[in-house]
Amino acid sequence: MFEKLLDPSSVAVIGASPDSSKIGNAVIENLVNQGYQGRILPINPSYGEILGLRCYPDIGSVDGEVDLAVIALPAKIAVQVMDQCLEKHVRFVIIVAGGFSELGEEGRKLEQQLLEKIRGTETRIIGPNTVGVLFPHSGVNTALTPGNRIWFPAQGDIGFISQSGALGLLVMDSITENGTGISGFVNIGNRVDVNEEDLMEMFLADGKTRSIVLYLESIADGERFYNTLKRVNSRKPVAVLKTGRSKEASKAASFHTGALASDDRVVEGVLRQAGAVRAHNEVELLDFGKAFAYAMPPKGKRIAVITTAGGVGVVTTDLLTGEDERPPLSMATFTEEETEELRKHALPIASLANPIDLTADGSTEAYRAILGILSESDSVDGIIAYALPQTPKIDASIVEPLKDAAKKKTTVVGVIGNRLAKDLIRELEAARVPAYPSIQRTVTAMKALYQYGYYQERIRNEQ
Amino acid sequence: MFEKLLDPSSVAVIGASPDSSKIGNAVIENLVNQGYQGRILPINPSYGEILGLRCYPDIGSVDGEVDLAVIALPAKIAVQVMDQCLEKHVRFVIIVAGGFSELGEEGRKLEQQLLEKIRGTETRIIGPNTVGVLFPHSGVNTALTPGNRIWFPAQGDIGFISQSGALGLLVMDSITENGTGISGFVNIGNRVDVNEEDLMEMFLADGKTRSIVLYLESIADGERFYNTLKRVNSRKPVAVLKTGRSKEASKAASFHTGALASDDRVVEGVLRQAGAVRAHNEVELLDFGKAFAYAMPPKGKRIAVITTAGGVGVVTTDLLTGEDERPPLSMATFTEEETEELRKHALPIASLANPIDLTADGSTEAYRAILGILSESDSVDGIIAYALPQTPKIDASIVEPLKDAAKKKTTVVGVIGNRLAKDLIRELEAARVPAYPSIQRTVTAMKALYQYGYYQERIRNEQ
Repeated sequence: MFEKLLDPSSVAVIGASPDSSKIGNAVIENLVNQGYQGRILPINPSYGEILGLRCYPDIGSVDGEVDLAVIALPAKIAVQVMDQCLEKHVRFVIIVAGGFSELGEEGRKLEQQLLEKIRGTETRIIGPNTVGVLFPHSGVNTALTPGNRIWFPAQGDIGFISQSGALGLLVMDSITENGTGISGFVNIGNRVDVNEEDLMEMFLADGKTRSIVLYLESIADGERFYNTLKRVNSRKPVAVLKTGRSKEASKAASFHTGALASDDRVVEGVLRQAGAVRAHNEVELLDFGKAFAYAMPPKGKRIAVITTAGGVGVVTTDLLTGEDERPPLSMATFTEEETEELRKHALPIASLANPIDLTADGSTEAYRAILGILSESDSVDGIIAYALPQTPKIDASIVEPLKDAAKKKTTVVGVIGNRLAKDLIRELEAARVPAYPSIQRTVTAMKALYQYGYYQERIRNEQ
Repeated sequence: MFEKLLDPSSVAVIGASPDSSKIGNAVIENLVNQGYQGRILPINPSYGEILGLRCYPDIGSVDGEVDLAVIALPAKIAVQVMDQCLEKHVRFVIIVAGGFSELGEEGRKLEQQLLEKIRGTETRIIGPNTVGVLFPHSGVNTALTPGNRIWFPAQGDIGFISQSGALGLLVMDSITENGTGISGFVNIGNRVDVNEEDLMEMFLADGKTRSIVLYLESIADGERFYNTLKRVNSRKPVAVLKTGRSKEASKAASFHTGALASDDRVVEGVLRQAGAVRAHNEVELLDFGKAFAYAMPPKGKRIAVITTAGGVGVVTTDLLTGEDERPPLSMATFTEEETEELRKHALPIASLANPIDLTADGSTEAYRAILGILSESDSVDGIIAYALPQTPKIDASIVEPLKDAAKKKTTVVGVIGNRLAKDLIRELEAARVPAYPSIQRTVTAMKALYQYGYYQERIRNEQ
């Protein structure tokens, strides 16, 4: 149903402009720079050509089908232009403009008109009040922010649905740092038609998507949301950042999108019942999306930790087994046999109690041997491994044994530091091993994986 | 008392080596690369010259005084070499080697010998089992990690005391990313002599240090720690990351440094009574150090938030006013007069309730005007400002108004994203405006500032 949004054969930009400060220019630029291979169709009666592309006076003049149209025109004009899109049987229309329900009664009426127009047609509307969509696998990028202000994520496995546009763009820019990719991004904006449930279904059906992350300030229909989330989440993990944990935030959200935020106790219950893991901030949201996309949940709570820096093992143990908002995990206890095996690969001074601290002597070879033992061990449900290139014998060759371990057992990697660490984290990312740049983020990702598995098991047992 | 550690006129490296894989080589390299202007004195009977520097057979052969010596030799030899250091009246001796009390009874005896040797002398020992010290202002860098594996922080205002060496190095490498500097770093290791209390006093007396951060796995003497912390912290804020919040972490710490960790309820009480803010992980620790070094605590809980991305304001409100381990703050309420003033500098669609969302129209000029109003307002105790260069009218010129606001009122800045955001955060850092790369870290820094002010006020009232 959403194939032509994910991979359209043509994209029209209504309100195309040669002026680089205009949205109607940025959208075309982004499509070109993203390497979109379908037809890009600038629409503007005042120009014959924009950015070297043939420009059409109106969408009706275009020969052939239009799968996706972006209307980069003010609210009232956008509503009028919808008629032409409907005549042309455009499948998906993105309405960028704000000035709808978020501004009050008059805007709400405009949204009502939009809905009436598309009733009974095959046309679906994304927005209004949206910064657009990004599907790196098909090269579709209709973001309104020019590429000189933002970097867009590479092709990846995470489907990202955001009620807030600017937050979505910032988060996407952020994750480019470690090379994390996405399968798609959609800013639902005022979601007059296409909503978070539709898009969860879309990403569930999409073969490129392995996990879904959802930023929401309000929920339009609690029951529908619950049912969709529960079903989708049981097949592809969905991490949710829902604001409104405090009353003051609910107020702020209503100013922002005009939607009413729900009582947070209800939201908390809905997420828990649906078995979805809740993120508390924008960084956790994408961290969880990455963990869910690259790793399976651990089968239990027993975590083995391996490091070349003792203090990092101590802080990890503290965060992993300490009480906070997430359930504590526990440190795996190795059998005597396992400890003896481990001993063969470490200096006498190395601590082989868990956390395993190989000290500065830890090498790729030691990691390979020890990760081999841990990933086969019945005493271990998950592995947190630190890859610390500041210690003398750790370099990029550690990626391979980490990748191998991750195939056999849930493995989350911490890589702390600048430069060498950043290079290494990008290599792990390319190998689809979930890696994080701080102890807290590494531990919290493992906890989120555990929580997802725990919820899913509970739901299976209820049935 | 510690002047000759902070700014020695000469540094001897005992066990100097021309072999770049040896610690006795890395220490000299680091001193040279850090631009140390005093005398660097390689000591090794086998060489006449190392890295182009004259090499001495033993420390006794050096002409003139030696303020600081680094012994880069194994434990037992290091203990013997101490005698020569004492004969030479070396003021500070850093003993790098492990193999002391962290390995058991025999090592404990070696430490006892060290203590007996220095009794009644002016010589102080740092370590053993330490990665060294770094004082960027005087160019002293005795870190054992070669500079091709790690970047060291620039000259700055934060004094960093760490019980763990590797953790300290990793954290220092990490903060170079945003250009955060330090006034000094000391890894106390097994702290046979110089301990965290001495170093808190040292950084208190040091004019270059504006805040202190402390990583501890165990506390040797609770009462002494409490008294020193309370006194130092009342004059220069001290942020503390003390592990052992969970029982399993205490166990891990005892394997790591051989010291006994204390009951965490006692630690929690000690920190609270001393009015010190506790960090929960290594990122918070340095984030708090930066906030404490650059900003004054807010006088109350009422925070104004300004952003060009609505969703960022919503998440900020959630984290700021929501319940978590830290006390919630509140959203400032502007007077009608203030709101009218604010209105002059924003588009009609901008939300001027708090958070102030200027939308994509927000510019440096609007920020300057609005920050001017907020920083003078009696309704506002602190300001969280987002500087988001992905929005079209925000660029580096925003640093100036943020700096001006920070002079008048507690201001913490959030800058989210890659590339342009990273450039901007470094510019804010250079201007000593505390800036953070995520919403959570921005909010938590403000909460830590509030917590510090609140504790200090309580202590003043008790007196």
